[in-house]
Amino acid sequence: MNNNVLSTKFLGCDSDFSSAEIVIFGAPYDGTTTFRPGTRFAPSAMRIDSIGIETYSPYFDADITDFTVNDFGDLDLPFGSPKKALSMISETAEYIFSNNKKPLMIGGEHLVSLPAIQQAVKKYPGLKIIHFDAHTDLRQDYLGEALSHSSVIRRVWDILGDNSIWQFGIRSGTREEFYWSREGHTSMCLHNFDTLGTAVEEIGGSPVYLTIDLDVLDPSNFPGTGTPEAGGVSFAQLIAALKTVSKLNIIGADIVELSPHYDHSGASTALACKVLREVLLAMSI
Amino acid sequence: MNNNVLSTKFLGCDSDFSSAEIVIFGAPYDGTTTFRPGTRFAPSAMRIDSIGIETYSPYFDADITDFTVNDFGDLDLPFGSPKKALSMISETAEYIFSNNKKPLMIGGEHLVSLPAIQQAVKKYPGLKIIHFDAHTDLRQDYLGEALSHSSVIRRVWDILGDNSIWQFGIRSGTREEFYWSREGHTSMCLHNFDTLGTAVEEIGGSPVYLTIDLDVLDPSNFPGTGTPEAGGVSFAQLIAALKTVSKLNIIGADIVELSPHYDHSGASTALACKVLREVLLAMSI
Amino acid sequence: MNNNVLSTKFLGCDSDFSSAEIVIFGAPYDGTTTFRPGTRFAPSAMRIDSIGIETYSPYFDADITDFTVNDFGDLDLPFGSPKKALSMISETAEYIFSNNKKPLMIGGEHLVSLPAIQQAVKKYPGLKIIHFDAHTDLRQDYLGEALSHSSVIRRVWDILGDNSIWQFGIRSGTREEFYWSREGHTSMCLHNFDTLGTAVEEIGGSPVYLTIDLDVLDPSNFPGTGTPEAGGVSFAQLIAALKTVSKLNIIGADIVELSPHYDHSGASTALACKVLREVLLAMSI
Amino acid sequence: MNNNVLSTKFLGCDSDFSSAEIVIFGAPYDGTTTFRPGTRFAPSAMRIDSIGIETYSPYFDADITDFTVNDFGDLDLPFGSPKKALSMISETAEYIFSNNKKPLMIGGEHLVSLPAIQQAVKKYPGLKIIHFDAHTDLRQDYLGEALSHSSVIRRVWDILGDNSIWQFGIRSGTREEFYWSREGHTSMCLHNFDTLGTAVEEIGGSPVYLTIDLDVLDPSNFPGTGTPEAGGVSFAQLIAALKTVSKLNIIGADIVELSPHYDHSGASTALACKVLREVLLAMSI
Amino acid sequence: MNNNVLSTKFLGCDSDFSSAEIVIFGAPYDGTTTFRPGTRFAPSAMRIDSIGIETYSPYFDADITDFTVNDFGDLDLPFGSPKKALSMISETAEYIFSNNKKPLMIGGEHLVSLPAIQQAVKKYPGLKIIHFDAHTDLRQDYLGEALSHSSVIRRVWDILGDNSIWQFGIRSGTREEFYWSREGHTSMCLHNFDTLGTAVEEIGGSPVYLTIDLDVLDPSNFPGTGTPEAGGVSFAQLIAALKTVSKLNIIGADIVELSPHYDHSGASTALACKVLREVLLAMSI
Amino acid sequence: MNNNVLSTKFLGCDSDFSSAEIVIFGAPYDGTTTFRPGTRFAPSAMRIDSIGIETYSPYFDADITDFTVNDFGDLDLPFGSPKKALSMISETAEYIFSNNKKPLMIGGEHLVSLPAIQQAVKKYPGLKIIHFDAHTDLRQDYLGEALSHSSVIRRVWDILGDNSIWQFGIRSGTREEFYWSREGHTSMCLHNFDTLGTAVEEIGGSPVYLTIDLDVLDPSNFPGTGTPEAGGVSFAQLIAALKTVSKLNIIGADIVELSPHYDHSGASTALACKVLREVLLAMSI
Repeated sequence: MNNNVLSTKFLGCDSDFSSAEIVIFGAPYDGTTTFRPGTRFAPSAMRIDSIGIETYSPYFDADITDFTVNDFGDLDLPFGSPKKALSMISETAEYIFSNNKKPLMIGGEHLVSLPAIQQAVKKYPGLKIIHFDAHTDLRQDYLGEALSHSSVIRRVWDILGDNSIWQFGIRSGTREEFYWSREGHTSMCLHNFDTLGTAVEEIGGSPVYLTIDLDVLDPSNFPGTGTPEAGGVSFAQLIAALKTVSKLNIIGADIVELSPHYDHSGASTALACKVLREVLLAMSI
Repeated sequence: MNNNVLSTKFLGCDSDFSSAEIVIFGAPYDGTTTFRPGTRFAPSAMRIDSIGIETYSPYFDADITDFTVNDFGDLDLPFGSPKKALSMISETAEYIFSNNKKPLMIGGEHLVSLPAIQQAVKKYPGLKIIHFDAHTDLRQDYLGEALSHSSVIRRVWDILGDNSIWQFGIRSGTREEFYWSREGHTSMCLHNFDTLGTAVEEIGGSPVYLTIDLDVLDPSNFPGTGTPEAGGVSFAQLIAALKTVSKLNIIGADIVELSPHYDHSGASTALACKVLREVLLAMSI
Repeated sequence: MNNNVLSTKFLGCDSDFSSAEIVIFGAPYDGTTTFRPGTRFAPSAMRIDSIGIETYSPYFDADITDFTVNDFGDLDLPFGSPKKALSMISETAEYIFSNNKKPLMIGGEHLVSLPAIQQAVKKYPGLKIIHFDAHTDLRQDYLGEALSHSSVIRRVWDILGDNSIWQFGIRSGTREEFYWSREGHTSMCLHNFDTLGTAVEEIGGSPVYLTIDLDVLDPSNFPGTGTPEAGGVSFAQLIAALKTVSKLNIIGADIVELSPHYDHSGASTALACKVLREVLLAMSI
Repeated sequence: MNNNVLSTKFLGCDSDFSSAEIVIFGAPYDGTTTFRPGTRFAPSAMRIDSIGIETYSPYFDADITDFTVNDFGDLDLPFGSPKKALSMISETAEYIFSNNKKPLMIGGEHLVSLPAIQQAVKKYPGLKIIHFDAHTDLRQDYLGEALSHSSVIRRVWDILGDNSIWQFGIRSGTREEFYWSREGHTSMCLHNFDTLGTAVEEIGGSPVYLTIDLDVLDPSNFPGTGTPEAGGVSFAQLIAALKTVSKLNIIGADIVELSPHYDHSGASTALACKVLREVLLAMSI
Repeated sequence: MNNNVLSTKFLGCDSDFSSAEIVIFGAPYDGTTTFRPGTRFAPSAMRIDSIGIETYSPYFDADITDFTVNDFGDLDLPFGSPKKALSMISETAEYIFSNNKKPLMIGGEHLVSLPAIQQAVKKYPGLKIIHFDAHTDLRQDYLGEALSHSSVIRRVWDILGDNSIWQFGIRSGTREEFYWSREGHTSMCLHNFDTLGTAVEEIGGSPVYLTIDLDVLDPSNFPGTGTPEAGGVSFAQLIAALKTVSKLNIIGADIVELSPHYDHSGASTALACKVLREVLLAMSI
Repeated sequence: MNNNVLSTKFLGCDSDFSSAEIVIFGAPYDGTTTFRPGTRFAPSAMRIDSIGIETYSPYFDADITDFTVNDFGDLDLPFGSPKKALSMISETAEYIFSNNKKPLMIGGEHLVSLPAIQQAVKKYPGLKIIHFDAHTDLRQDYLGEALSHSSVIRRVWDILGDNSIWQFGIRSGTREEFYWSREGHTSMCLHNFDTLGTAVEEIGGSPVYLTIDLDVLDPSNFPGTGTPEAGGVSFAQLIAALKTVSKLNIIGADIVELSPHYDHSGASTALACKVLREVLLAMSI
């Protein structure tokens, strides 16, 4: 009697956890967001609107129904306590990695990437990071707080050190962050994805975690985010970049910073669903 | 590992179908809506926002966690074919009644009530209808179509005849509809719920189907609907009416015509979730 | 071949000018609005949305199709020059009065009432004004400008003098305005419509111009206005007031200050259309 | 006395039907839309906002006041019955073609193109179709319904067969649709308008019907549509394409899928009005 | 040269700190909000929109220009660390009390009241609390966090104990919270302000801190809040309540939980500005 | 005690007037806007949202904290009287120029540029104008009014004559305006900024006033404006143009036509703040 009921899964992905190669889960946390919060609503909005997205990608000429994907659900995270929230995300990521599956996390703010990357590097020493973003995210701290959406990649660097992080699409930050990167701590590309091909060659077969802050996109493509930064990449450029990174050994990924309430047209949420589909395929092919 | 995952059920209602007394399901159909469509989005919006509603009602001094309620999901209904859509709703209602459970349907436009009532009367001969609405819904047809949101109660009358339908909160319709009712075909109360107490006495122990078009509420309380009609009842008046009808033998109910995209504040969806809670309690107590 | 084409008239009113008793026209001007402009969009928004309103009023038990009403269209008024705009409205009002018809004007900001009242008093010496509003509108001037939405009733007083103006629903203004009124220049009712019955008795058979600033309504009923003032009347109270004033000899009327872009739900525009219907009936019965 | 009244015509086009070469009409139907409805509001929104558009096109260096265009109005179509709605559109298209005029239809959803094309091919055997869209629209049926916005071009193919349909801007559909096209049934261009020049050469002097689903545009340019698909063409690319197709013998055209309520900025409606102007010129020059 | 520049102060209040009797300041913190954040935007939105509010209150027949009020500005509070944020608010409140002035704080979420009340009770032993709210706010903790918007009054009770807290307008909470209050820990009025007169008598001349969660208002009056709860008080009822409490010895107050982005009409922000004016007068008269 | 209070200055610019090289001020006037008003809200919206913008520009590799900039505040301008409003702007511009500082004005509609340019040419004979805009703004008058947003550059030409005005990004106007320009009265570039390099060479060391109507940007980048014109430049193109004009001797500038209420995402306001930063740097370097 249940066969005419609409799915509440991302893109209809309904594989069991045990049989799945990739596990999607939501981390609806935005507790350290300084300007406009609201990324906590991204996972639930994407679940609903993913019903309007085809499962077939003409870009990859592939269909996500060809792969086994589990939708784990969205974590119930406590606001007011970043540490507790990060600890719960950490447990979930560890559980997925320990079952030899690849996590694909939906934020939330960018800070949620930290515990996932911490677990990734435990599982995959020698991990490399591909980071798409408008912002440097390299602050030492924000108003004294070391755990902040604007310092998340700096915290990742604390773990991985130099020669591990490639940043693309960056166009906003303090002078100190840009200059610190230039000292050789990260590879930062200010002109969209111009050096991505080179990065892929350098990384070769190393395990890679891909973290996509969707505000890497131009606000014309993606107004539904807390801190829209004019001058970003187009969707077409992002798709091309995903095709490039699909050659890498991606062992985990995340998509963060959709804030659906700030785009009443729904176009930002629809785009995020499509990026989710393409990242899934980039990880699977 | 799943215990920290957020529920995707209405108000967290997660009883099995087999053990449940009440079964909630969504009928996201708005294919005959003439003015502003969008009620198709009501069930999914209510699922998400019901997370912000307490399970305890100070009005009934009761908690929905004290009762067994199943969330059946939302039907996948075809637009462009009212007949097929109604047929699918009909099957679902029949399935619920045949298992001796009470359906609580979330619309969609008001036409979705028709198949549920058709099944209710099959199960419960002598059925009476309590109808809360801004609109008469008594048109013989609309632009030649007999199946229309604005003729749904007339279609119910075709089945049940005179002395079966009590209408409350009515304030909009054609002159013909108002005069046809006055001929004795329905009991229509133009002043909010003034005669509800009398109706409850008249109905006594007969089985009752309660159909609530949420536009019975004043648009100040409930702007998120396709045809807002100024001059409606307040939420407090609706709660009082629900406490009155809770004395009846309600064997099924529905809540229709929330169109969530037309109220960006979310207040209409939050209110609809609260009405859902109160109707659940009115049916259970 | 044209019979299936939707009307672009207010409420479908399509009588010829020559045969009409009442002439509706739009005065989409908001050039002196100090806070949030946008009332210029009211006439066109009401034309479109009036399609969703029934022609039958259960309040008056009457139907506007029983009367002859012409929709004259919306004036093309120049922004940046209040004098020229008022002059064009004046000509239109004069034309309607000179043909022994009653104008029913849709604003625009409240200043548009001034030229209509100027023409009304020319035609009907001894004219009385019924004024529904949240604001006193009795400023001597605003930032030095004598022609302003916030001084319009003071300008009317300049013409008519004491014992001519009855104000209802007032709840915002400067201390000077309230005290000036108390000196006996206008009859100002601070408690909704409490003294309306008395006013109707005092006015008796004198010709009356009815000017309704829709912000007399509580913002809960009518958020779509430039300066929402909490604490206003309900739609039900406004309807009761209209039934009371329908006993008067209303020779002209206007409805002003709908700013449709500020209410995305459309409820404010729908309400304004309904008030238009009720005022039409109050003038006709 | 009427000379200062604002036009309610598209772009002020006020030629008589009899003298007009092109006839614009609205087909506000969205009854089979599966995701987000609302295209029914496009014609009325465009009428109002076209007041903000210049009549002169710097792209064509031409002015629409140089041509005779009639605005026929918007059809009053029944929701809940696609067949009846399509039949009424069919009659209107037939009436325009039979008077040797060119129809320019404003949707509504894409299904409204079907009856217009059916009449076009009756009048012009050997008709060719130029189709701009994000979606393939080649489904055999949708949830069992043969008449659906997502199967409209397949229905056109049922009439015209192979070698008759050129599709541009396509980037979303099922795998089956893409592969069916590749079998040679339609000419589908996945890279914007790359092959449009070739198509124009192939078509030569044959009669052409141009159907533009505005979601061919990137959602950054055009968020006001039901199913925004990232990765589309820019307005500048669309204008260039229109200049290219202006060399063809266009005997009818339509612009569909604007859903104005989903873009509160009004930019989508303004763009649609501009496309209307450019299509008018492309048909006239 | 500066005299034509618009004020950026609340209601134009520009007294020096040293000469002011009342000091307004903003506490834009919403870091523990569980459902929909955004109250951090309230102070800045109210500063701008207070330009549209008259300084004269017809309710109190008094003008705020008759009193000396300082606008201290908005605190720069760190998200992600409730403790640090509360500590900064605490310092500011202490500074104001130590200068023998009365603070009037604009939230932010309700948790910001805690440090202000902590400082108030230090200065004024025997302090009583008047609490207007839709929610009980009496949770022992929320997901393990003792510092939460939903436990703030329980934290106040930890300090003050029984017979110190009067709650009005309450209509949402867990069963446990309602029953805990009934044990005598707080005086909770479920029917609007019915027992407020009695409370004022009981309190007599004791020092009182007034904390107003604006969601005590019905969402029809005040949709711009994170958790709208149908069934609240009207603005008129709130004004009457403020006139009643103006008889008390109010030594500090706050207005919290305006979330301006959730009400595009601006009516909620305008109402909050008016409540600010009335609270100022209630504290001054 | 004041050090933790948020700045209410544009981008935190808090230099004294006397020591500042550049003076920012707001001219919130939109009284002659013909289509959709609302630019009056731009300065206050930009003040608030500029808090989310970094002070460092990666485009110029410079930081605005390296320069002395005064925020003068927003003028209190009378609606309904363009002459008086322009006179007040004129006084302010004169005051800034007479103190040998550079004004950077935030509109408001484009007409506000006229008095600023009038003062600029008094101070700097031989002044040249760089004009970025979607619209020609060369009308002789609008509905008889010589002072209008759509005739502002024509009024500037009245002062400066031929060979003084370079226009870029133009894509909308009447045929007459385009043809009048082609007669040699202005240099008009229809293809974005293609001839900007040439213009900069021609102008050389002459004093330049830069007037930026933000609708020069494509509506995809900047929907928050009254008359969005598809087909504009991208933010990246605008930045490149600003780097080019930074070689000129810019003695004053303005940024006009942001209408923040028409873009709920906030992306338009954020972009305008970023353009403000870049123009500041282009004037300073």
